[in-house]
Amino acid sequence: MNTVTPKVLPATPSATNPPLLIGDLLDSGVRMAGDNPIVYRDLSRHSYRRFRERVHQLAHLLTAQGVRAGDVVAVLDWDSHRYLEAFFAVPMLGAVLHTVNVRLAPEQIHYTMEHAEDDFVLVHEDFVPLLEPLAERLPRIRGYLLCQDAPRPLESPLPLVGEYEALLAEQPGHYDFPTFDENAVATLFYTTGTTGNPKGVFFTHRQLVLHTLGEASTFQSPGFALLNRDKVYMPITPMFHVHAWGVPYTATLMGATQVYPGRYEPEMLVKLLVEERVDFSHCVPTLLNMVVAAEPIRSGRVDLTGWKVLVGGSPLTQPLARKAWELGIDTRSAYGMSETCPLLTADILPRDIDQADFETQLPWRCKAGVAVPLVRLQVVDESGTPLPQDGESVGEVRVRAPWLTQGYYKEQARSEELWRDGWLHTGDVAALDERGFLQIRDRIKDVIKTGGEWISSLDLENLIGQFPGIDEVAVIGVPDDQWGERPAALAVASDLNNPPDVEALKAFLTGFVEQGKINRWAIPSFIRFVDEIPKTSVGKLDKKRIRQEV
Amino acid sequence: MNTVTPKVLPATPSATNPPLLIGDLLDSGVRMAGDNPIVYRDLSRHSYRRFRERVHQLAHLLTAQGVRAGDVVAVLDWDSHRYLEAFFAVPMLGAVLHTVNVRLAPEQIHYTMEHAEDDFVLVHEDFVPLLEPLAERLPRIRGYLLCQDAPRPLESPLPLVGEYEALLAEQPGHYDFPTFDENAVATLFYTTGTTGNPKGVFFTHRQLVLHTLGEASTFQSPGFALLNRDKVYMPITPMFHVHAWGVPYTATLMGATQVYPGRYEPEMLVKLLVEERVDFSHCVPTLLNMVVAAEPIRSGRVDLTGWKVLVGGSPLTQPLARKAWELGIDTRSAYGMSETCPLLTADILPRDIDQADFETQLPWRCKAGVAVPLVRLQVVDESGTPLPQDGESVGEVRVRAPWLTQGYYKEQARSEELWRDGWLHTGDVAALDERGFLQIRDRIKDVIKTGGEWISSLDLENLIGQFPGIDEVAVIGVPDDQWGERPAALAVASDLNNPPDVEALKAFLTGFVEQGKINRWAIPSFIRFVDEIPKTSVGKLDKKRIRQEV
Repeated sequence: MNTVTPKVLPATPSATNPPLLIGDLLDSGVRMAGDNPIVYRDLSRHSYRRFRERVHQLAHLLTAQGVRAGDVVAVLDWDSHRYLEAFFAVPMLGAVLHTVNVRLAPEQIHYTMEHAEDDFVLVHEDFVPLLEPLAERLPRIRGYLLCQDAPRPLESPLPLVGEYEALLAEQPGHYDFPTFDENAVATLFYTTGTTGNPKGVFFTHRQLVLHTLGEASTFQSPGFALLNRDKVYMPITPMFHVHAWGVPYTATLMGATQVYPGRYEPEMLVKLLVEERVDFSHCVPTLLNMVVAAEPIRSGRVDLTGWKVLVGGSPLTQPLARKAWELGIDTRSAYGMSETCPLLTADILPRDIDQADFETQLPWRCKAGVAVPLVRLQVVDESGTPLPQDGESVGEVRVRAPWLTQGYYKEQARSEELWRDGWLHTGDVAALDERGFLQIRDRIKDVIKTGGEWISSLDLENLIGQFPGIDEVAVIGVPDDQWGERPAALAVASDLNNPPDVEALKAFLTGFVEQGKINRWAIPSFIRFVDEIPKTSVGKLDKKRIRQEV
Repeated sequence: MNTVTPKVLPATPSATNPPLLIGDLLDSGVRMAGDNPIVYRDLSRHSYRRFRERVHQLAHLLTAQGVRAGDVVAVLDWDSHRYLEAFFAVPMLGAVLHTVNVRLAPEQIHYTMEHAEDDFVLVHEDFVPLLEPLAERLPRIRGYLLCQDAPRPLESPLPLVGEYEALLAEQPGHYDFPTFDENAVATLFYTTGTTGNPKGVFFTHRQLVLHTLGEASTFQSPGFALLNRDKVYMPITPMFHVHAWGVPYTATLMGATQVYPGRYEPEMLVKLLVEERVDFSHCVPTLLNMVVAAEPIRSGRVDLTGWKVLVGGSPLTQPLARKAWELGIDTRSAYGMSETCPLLTADILPRDIDQADFETQLPWRCKAGVAVPLVRLQVVDESGTPLPQDGESVGEVRVRAPWLTQGYYKEQARSEELWRDGWLHTGDVAALDERGFLQIRDRIKDVIKTGGEWISSLDLENLIGQFPGIDEVAVIGVPDDQWGERPAALAVASDLNNPPDVEALKAFLTGFVEQGKINRWAIPSFIRFVDEIPKTSVGKLDKKRIRQEV
């Protein structure tokens, strides 16, 4: 990189150059659509104007409880209007919002809350029993604010300071929020890897505002067109997971109607989808798989026509995208990870593809798409040299963008490993095509090396998933004396009692060998039908545990 | 403002947090729509991919001519693909782009080029005669790059270094652009006021990137929906005027088709509107007035149905919006000024209004709209206290946003006056309604004080403009012994040889007095029909010169 000295002029002394702060997103939403509702299950509904007022009230509540700028406020709640309020009130005070992954094991939750140095906690009553045995070993925490959907007395050894709604109602409706450095940390959460303790990733106000603006531009673009002021949004990626991909912030900037489903219960999700006429959701493939397999939807008793679903976390497969399409569900892909806030690419269909029929679109819908504005993305070989954009050359994805975590919280060695050579290393292997569309092929550590060739476990999962009677499949590499590694598969049959014939499946795969799509070593030497495939806390295939089962 | 200490964490040493630089906007456009064209008159057309390559070539060309980061590069050209390339290449080098207002008087142009400390100049051959007598008094300028639509030898005493296209063709297609401080100045241009020398306003890379993201989010929103990748854009506000409202940057971010009309010649403009199927333009009301009055359009021989026009600079009047609508032209308003980059508000119609008929929409279309994301806008009384949002309380508009000029270039006193009390003072008086829609009533200095009451010259112009046979009108205040001030009007009749009857016009205005819309002192004591109303260099009513004519 060459270094230059451009002209930097001083501002006149009285000028104000406002920092990028999360509070501005909220004000924008209220201006754009003050009457649009924020909905929580079938329990509550209020306008954006009231939403802003409640954020101000929550700030008073937290201040009264001693929360100060620089403090860390943890939240353990299902997806709710309360959580959304905390998304704003906590960072707007200059405090840090720790969105606790409630699906982790209790000891891991303890680890994250201790490591994050949580000072104050918002806890839904469902998680009180979880925290009770941990509280003694979290002496830093000054108090717990109880969140209940219906007020009722609760006996607990936790030092509860009161109930959210009851205390909120006592607060004034306007808080004079401070202005501060846009590089202040706004959010913190933990991501689990295959080894070691969970790692904390953190994002600043500046990063979240820029991510929101990038997402707003992307989500409204033709060829994507997922979200705007007149749409109804409901997340089905938990708010503790990379701020539900940052979409609650983007939806708020636009003034979109927001629906929060609480605990993810199939009946409630379907009820809200239908009754609130949800236009847009996002989720991991596993969850979409559950939706399209659910009886009321599969049978057409519940009509989801027009529902748009953004799929991320793992690649969207063609069989799943087609199954969804047949039910009227319009799927798109995006790519990112906890460390990247998360949005990196989105499959904004090029104009010619956007106007084509579904079968033409299908492979495009299952790619991860193009890098969104301000993201610089490369696919590089082992020496860090960018590979040709030919759709075939496969290497690691590395990125730069103004919204990437600047390290793992208090983890110097892992931070440097993530950022070696000044690029954030995603650990994903992928190819870029001529149009700049990214196709994720695998996690680096899940690539299978057999007979001197690399096989993508994802490619194999895609092919096996096309065989009739298979709902889900996971492929891993197992050591093999002769070939180095050979693929092995766990699969879930649509009818658990009547799984497909393994030899017929192998014959089906042999067809792809004959077409030159895979080589013959890619046919798994081992295929087993199971009732369920192990998943991580965020619904991805847990290849670490799958390896133990094979 | 209270001060707090939030948590600011250091980045891991290898981490990269990219600054917000203009080059990222260009890369985004190429990714979104590499095949979309950039069109210049009926003379040239190339893809976004080629556009990027030409920007890289221009950077090589400028570097070869000795242009360095921190230098100032002036452009005197009509709206062109070359200008667009300079919008990117100059700032991407870390140099400052000075967009010279070619409509100023030669001595004013000399003032701005000397004051800006221009080092190098891109000049269209039409402006060579203008610069020749000035060049001796601009000794700092190292060279002049000639821009021609058709190559031909040119004799000139200017130290011309060669012709744009000829030199560009010799350059390599990839430039390794530097990374630098996002607070580096990217652009500089001059705005003229009623008194004194032109004032230089300047914008940084950070400000322009944020303005672009704000515009991208706004321009794609429902209720506005002016621009996206699949639209064709042509400016009719010169590129020297607040970077054509920043829209070339926004169009580039999105990958929209861009059409540059060169010198604004009615025939070429109409030809391009029709043949390129332009979806979206922006201009001042005066220009739109000319368009709707042009014979081929008025007669319906040229059909502009579906053309969306964003009107700014001065408020859009209801008669003009209606006349446009009858010709199939869809008008919207925005508000801003040179000092504000410019976008502050946009009339994003609320959902209920957006779905209503034109007559219901009309008053909304003529308001300036709501503050766009990240803009904080207040209407305040003389003590700086925000006024109620009741649609009636009138006061000065003051703003904060992350894209406001941080002062006038080398003008300390005027900078502090602009920014007194930490808000940028627009000098406009306006009212905010219950929905946060801004209605500009006047420039502070144009408000007429008569009989102890304030009268908005704009309101009066709106009412007079509704009288049949009047094409254009300007109202000013003239001193009056009895009333303090009284309004006086200059008007242009549709039929210059047969102007409307002045007494009939006064009787028409008396009707509004009876309806309580204006008080009786508001009826101008003096109404004169003229062939033309004086305009400023950017097409606004020139009230300073109008005062001299009354």
